[in-house]
Amino acid sequence: MKKLIDSADTVVADALAGMAAAHPHQLAVDLDNRIIYRRTPKDGGKVAIISGGGSGHEPLHGGFVGTGMLDAACAGEVFTSPVPDQIVAATTAVDRGAGVLHIVKNYTGDVMNFEMAAEIVDMESGIEVATVVTNDDVAVEDSLYTAGRRGVGITVMVEKIAGAAAEEGRGLAEVAEIASRVNAAGRSMGMALTSCTVPANGKPSFDLPEDEMEIGIGIHGEPGRHRERIAPAERIAAQLIEPILAELPEGEDGHGVIAMLNGMGATPLLELYLMHGHVAEQLGAAGVTVERSLVGNYITSLDMAGCSLTLLRADAEMLRLWDAPVLTPGLRWGA
Amino acid sequence: MKKLIDSADTVVADALAGMAAAHPHQLAVDLDNRIIYRRTPKDGGKVAIISGGGSGHEPLHGGFVGTGMLDAACAGEVFTSPVPDQIVAATTAVDRGAGVLHIVKNYTGDVMNFEMAAEIVDMESGIEVATVVTNDDVAVEDSLYTAGRRGVGITVMVEKIAGAAAEEGRGLAEVAEIASRVNAAGRSMGMALTSCTVPANGKPSFDLPEDEMEIGIGIHGEPGRHRERIAPAERIAAQLIEPILAELPEGEDGHGVIAMLNGMGATPLLELYLMHGHVAEQLGAAGVTVERSLVGNYITSLDMAGCSLTLLRADAEMLRLWDAPVLTPGLRWGA
Repeated sequence: MKKLIDSADTVVADALAGMAAAHPHQLAVDLDNRIIYRRTPKDGGKVAIISGGGSGHEPLHGGFVGTGMLDAACAGEVFTSPVPDQIVAATTAVDRGAGVLHIVKNYTGDVMNFEMAAEIVDMESGIEVATVVTNDDVAVEDSLYTAGRRGVGITVMVEKIAGAAAEEGRGLAEVAEIASRVNAAGRSMGMALTSCTVPANGKPSFDLPEDEMEIGIGIHGEPGRHRERIAPAERIAAQLIEPILAELPEGEDGHGVIAMLNGMGATPLLELYLMHGHVAEQLGAAGVTVERSLVGNYITSLDMAGCSLTLLRADAEMLRLWDAPVLTPGLRWGA
Repeated sequence: MKKLIDSADTVVADALAGMAAAHPHQLAVDLDNRIIYRRTPKDGGKVAIISGGGSGHEPLHGGFVGTGMLDAACAGEVFTSPVPDQIVAATTAVDRGAGVLHIVKNYTGDVMNFEMAAEIVDMESGIEVATVVTNDDVAVEDSLYTAGRRGVGITVMVEKIAGAAAEEGRGLAEVAEIASRVNAAGRSMGMALTSCTVPANGKPSFDLPEDEMEIGIGIHGEPGRHRERIAPAERIAAQLIEPILAELPEGEDGHGVIAMLNGMGATPLLELYLMHGHVAEQLGAAGVTVERSLVGNYITSLDMAGCSLTLLRADAEMLRLWDAPVLTPGLRWGA
């Protein structure tokens, strides 16, 4: 195992310490509870948003804490859900009197622990919690850690757009509604050239021969749809686009998409841009307008080489909220 | 070779097409000449800045084109200098009447081609050109493609700080002077866990056994100082810091550093943050104040796993220019 770590036992704690050191003016990291907070909480009376999940998908979720996006993120062990206590602590800390939205990727452990935390919060403090579970991965129905579709790339867009809605001062029901609407209008598909290696295991999660790739891979290395010989990038792009378009809601006339071409962690930007070129061209040929593009590492899978594509059929409101300022370590633009 | 490409012959052209598609409002890409320009040129009367070099180091240089940083970047083939014609075309196009600064990494081919281009520009159009050659890599004196120290991570900081000085409307001599001063005050050191694979070669540039790492690696896989068994991250951090501090200019009392913990392309952000945590802690113990931090992939080496550290002994003016707004695909902050 070739990794820049000290020991498999301390990797998450050590990375969080480094994150705190890297962003002292933006983030406040509770190292004991493994919660990443904004350094300056948002104004009172606004809805707060938290997310969280297993570590190993950076910058998701901790890298999306900041103005215009999350208020806090709970980091679990690598590929392991955060525990209810963390989620309760984060929810209680970020509430500004208007309730808290939980954004949860659809994996059994995450869904269960966020649900349990919401119940505890309700009993202990009465803070109002709404939950949106993301489930955008068209590769497989049910999977190693999931009943139903897996939650992947759309989570980044839900966090961004719901974050902007909360920043505008909308109520919890409205923020939850747009988060649900974004999830429902988004679909993703991923592929891997190599496996990832979980530090605690010390060896690749699966074997993939030198001349093969896996289409439909999950972000924890869960099995995809099939394996085949490595193909040219142009054909791989088609293999991601086709199953997404088959399930992507139509939207109204003139509704284009926000496209995210995401790296799995070990794929260089040169290749991600190259893939995005094919995606943009093929979507154009299919009559789909790409309104906004995001290319880079946003929801990764440790040191897996590969990429995923997420398309969101975006209405005017989603585009406006997408364009709103965001200031986080992992995503930043606007004023 | 596991890469998301179509063919080794078209990888740079295809990636540039994808870059153009990803940033239509920010960048204008001349695909024939392989030059990345700002979509909206800067105001007349301001110094323009270009850079360039072999591809495979993304986001450097094309990803640093935009307000507050470069006016254009010339992309060579993978790990190969751009040709003088490209540099002449870019220089001529970006000049706003105040001259053009060339920022060049110290590799024989790049230095020669930028020099030749500057001579042609002088003969053809009389546009004033100043050149700053970066040479911050403390690993080796002379190397596979270099006489003297190699130019690596400081290039990012030179482009950022000189870019801010140009945006303020300073003259060419002044912009070149601060660029030189930043280069002189910066030092870097890198390490690799794995080799990179150049698409045209189809196999790793060097062999590195499964339990070994190379300390002092160059960004093209040029040999470093030595190989040894993979060590804990804490010790690797020390092996990067010590040779840098041994050669880093002292600066005046109270001058801290800007620290960049850079990924080589295939190293996940989780590990980069973890490394940065050790770097910040060890610099603190050595009495060096980290004034600003940058953690991520900024000057990469295709799909190499590993990292590099760059430290800039920053005076008050450098810090002010570092903090100035920058709006590029690869680096953005401020208003």
